[in-house]
Amino acid sequence: MVDITHKKTTLRTAVAQATVKVSKPETIDAIKNDTVPKGNVFAMSKAAGLLGVKRTPDILPDCHPLPIEFTGVEYKIDGLDIRVIFTVKTIYKTGVEVEAMHGASVVALNMYDMLKPIDKGIEIHAIKLLSKKGGKSDYKNKFK
Amino acid sequence: MVDITHKKTTLRTAVAQATVKVSKPETIDAIKNDTVPKGNVFAMSKAAGLLGVKRTPDILPDCHPLPIEFTGVEYKIDGLDIRVIFTVKTIYKTGVEVEAMHGASVVALNMYDMLKPIDKGIEIHAIKLLSKKGGKSDYKNKFK
Amino acid sequence: MVDITHKKTTLRTAVAQATVKVSKPETIDAIKNDTVPKGNVFAMSKAAGLLGVKRTPDILPDCHPLPIEFTGVEYKIDGLDIRVIFTVKTIYKTGVEVEAMHGASVVALNMYDMLKPIDKGIEIHAIKLLSKKGGKSDYKNKFK
Amino acid sequence: MVDITHKKTTLRTAVAQATVKVSKPETIDAIKNDTVPKGNVFAMSKAAGLLGVKRTPDILPDCHPLPIEFTGVEYKIDGLDIRVIFTVKTIYKTGVEVEAMHGASVVALNMYDMLKPIDKGIEIHAIKLLSKKGGKSDYKNKFK
Amino acid sequence: MVDITHKKTTLRTAVAQATVKVSKPETIDAIKNDTVPKGNVFAMSKAAGLLGVKRTPDILPDCHPLPIEFTGVEYKIDGLDIRVIFTVKTIYKTGVEVEAMHGASVVALNMYDMLKPIDKGIEIHAIKLLSKKGGKSDYKNKFK
Amino acid sequence: MVDITHKKTTLRTAVAQATVKVSKPETIDAIKNDTVPKGNVFAMSKAAGLLGVKRTPDILPDCHPLPIEFTGVEYKIDGLDIRVIFTVKTIYKTGVEVEAMHGASVVALNMYDMLKPIDKGIEIHAIKLLSKKGGKSDYKNKFK
Repeated sequence: MVDITHKKTTLRTAVAQATVKVSKPETIDAIKNDTVPKGNVFAMSKAAGLLGVKRTPDILPDCHPLPIEFTGVEYKIDGLDIRVIFTVKTIYKTGVEVEAMHGASVVALNMYDMLKPIDKGIEIHAIKLLSKKGGKSDYKNKFK
Repeated sequence: MVDITHKKTTLRTAVAQATVKVSKPETIDAIKNDTVPKGNVFAMSKAAGLLGVKRTPDILPDCHPLPIEFTGVEYKIDGLDIRVIFTVKTIYKTGVEVEAMHGASVVALNMYDMLKPIDKGIEIHAIKLLSKKGGKSDYKNKFK
Repeated sequence: MVDITHKKTTLRTAVAQATVKVSKPETIDAIKNDTVPKGNVFAMSKAAGLLGVKRTPDILPDCHPLPIEFTGVEYKIDGLDIRVIFTVKTIYKTGVEVEAMHGASVVALNMYDMLKPIDKGIEIHAIKLLSKKGGKSDYKNKFK
Repeated sequence: MVDITHKKTTLRTAVAQATVKVSKPETIDAIKNDTVPKGNVFAMSKAAGLLGVKRTPDILPDCHPLPIEFTGVEYKIDGLDIRVIFTVKTIYKTGVEVEAMHGASVVALNMYDMLKPIDKGIEIHAIKLLSKKGGKSDYKNKFK
Repeated sequence: MVDITHKKTTLRTAVAQATVKVSKPETIDAIKNDTVPKGNVFAMSKAAGLLGVKRTPDILPDCHPLPIEFTGVEYKIDGLDIRVIFTVKTIYKTGVEVEAMHGASVVALNMYDMLKPIDKGIEIHAIKLLSKKGGKSDYKNKFK
Repeated sequence: MVDITHKKTTLRTAVAQATVKVSKPETIDAIKNDTVPKGNVFAMSKAAGLLGVKRTPDILPDCHPLPIEFTGVEYKIDGLDIRVIFTVKTIYKTGVEVEAMHGASVVALNMYDMLKPIDKGIEIHAIKLLSKKGGKSDYKNKFK
């Protein structure tokens, strides 16, 4: 684990995404109408993601434990694609981009898990960083 | 969580993949030559994946705790793509496809985390089930 | 931890409850209308409970790890009281009553946590077993 | 999870309680005389509570991870009631009232679990905040 | 993780030990008289060990999750040495020797942690398997 | 858990060791040549240790959660002994010596677990603090 004892504490924000591709419009409808048998997909997956992001240093060996001070989840539906936009903020010495990517992946996996009884053709695509602020180098994904 | 008290115990296998896309050949070389500063990427990511797959029911609300009886990780390098192939077996009442997908995603995220100091352009793609056996319906991804 | 190597595996069910007392009707309305700022209280608390019940052996030293095969959460609103009814099933050598009580308490605590920005007077009451089946002695709480 | 990046760090203390009601005086005697078969109930439940309170952000989605700087457990016996008084302190941007309530509930559940082989009639009552200090609004439960 | 899908389920027992060496007789007295400021050392370390042993597959990548059906902790004082004897039983396809060693090490580390305010010279020695039964090969440490 | 709200934040470093004694030179060769069937022993045990050290407050009741800012693992082979040197740094109010000892013990246990299929005579010895800096009293093990 990298030594960060000498680094400065600053506000850092990272936004990551994962895309859940369902295979038919009925799946989107079931989510919107809250008729998925396992429950409310967006709310329960948000809960899983809020918990999951806090487990990042338990899952990835080199991640520093850090004070997560904000976590937000947004869903954007575009045809059969559901984009999960996961935002994390900290005021600390190291960034939260991996935390944001982990959070997005947990939300996406939970959507997969809740939806698989009604849709066997779901895939998860493009887990990637959208933007980060604070720290040495800002970053903006040009395709956001 | 779905009631599985009435289901039959059978041998179940699931194979999932995640693709880690790096942005330059030097990254692939550093992995192969074991010169990545954070350590041996394939071995450490395998360790993270073996642990992570066992945490699946701690991360995803509807996943049943189950006796994971085999976990395997393979890496296939193809140009700038590294495919993570994650296999899980259980003898139990419910399948392990989400476990395999979770394992693949943890391995991929850990590769991202270890490689990001030397490559800022990494993305994770196509977390998906490749095949499953046992249980009600076998499944074979036709694009495997 | 009690030695259960000699015990018989049977289907066991336990139902426990916790009562969340809110202090004003507006809180009940906000839950029903899904206008609580932190999100959908029933769905997110169910997610927390489904995860929490699986952590019982991580939290309580003498609890055996066991294959939880069903978990269900129901909410019953009666005036300012919300009763959380938590059901757990296993096919194993020891009962799941503490698991059900732990699940009910996690759901209740999460409701408290999500509601406290809009209601400062919430209390949690009467975490207790309602019924259990299977194992040596069935049990039925006479005040259910 | 609420954004606390702009909040001030102050010393915050919260005291919560849970009441464990046993059904017969022999149970109280067994605790006092340290003759409960599963072990020393007060010491082991304190250990479970000290660990449990640190897991609060792993269990409740909206709880911020925070530096717990003091945890204390006290037991007050009054007839067949055992009051668990759980105190938590932090120097951070958000309070620890839910942490204190979670700690009290874990201690109470562990007492239930350790005592159930000798007393089938135990209930847990009145998990509630007794007082909090620091932060925007102090609070003192008038019935303490 | 080794494939155990083809292995037979049998009763397996493992006993491991760790030795905690304190540096002065006053430390032993404080443990016996229950005057250690952090609390009852034997009871709290037992609680930590009972929980810790269940976390073994969360800590060690290649350990299979398995149904721990008995855990016992004994302490033997011999001069300035305290031997921690940790027993684990399962009925499963793979042994519990690493679980027993992990349990013994957690108990020993917790004793170290609780005692260090009153004794700065503590060391932990000889974490080793004492005996195992069940499975392919029984084992008896000749120096037990 | 000791009250540290009044303590000063300083840079603190602790170095601990554990010694893994294998029973034959072939085991050392297999590690060096990376031919151990379970995988790369040093890299995977380092991953387990980096994760394990972050779980210290989840395993030991009185340990404060703290911001681990550096973790390093070194291995020194001397005949049949492998010394694991584990370093932890934090900038906080309390030391990290127990964290370093826990990290060293997890690495050693994982080496035991990975090596036991090829060497049945492994023992773990001398888990102890080598040095600590920062805080009230520096410490240097005279036998280092």
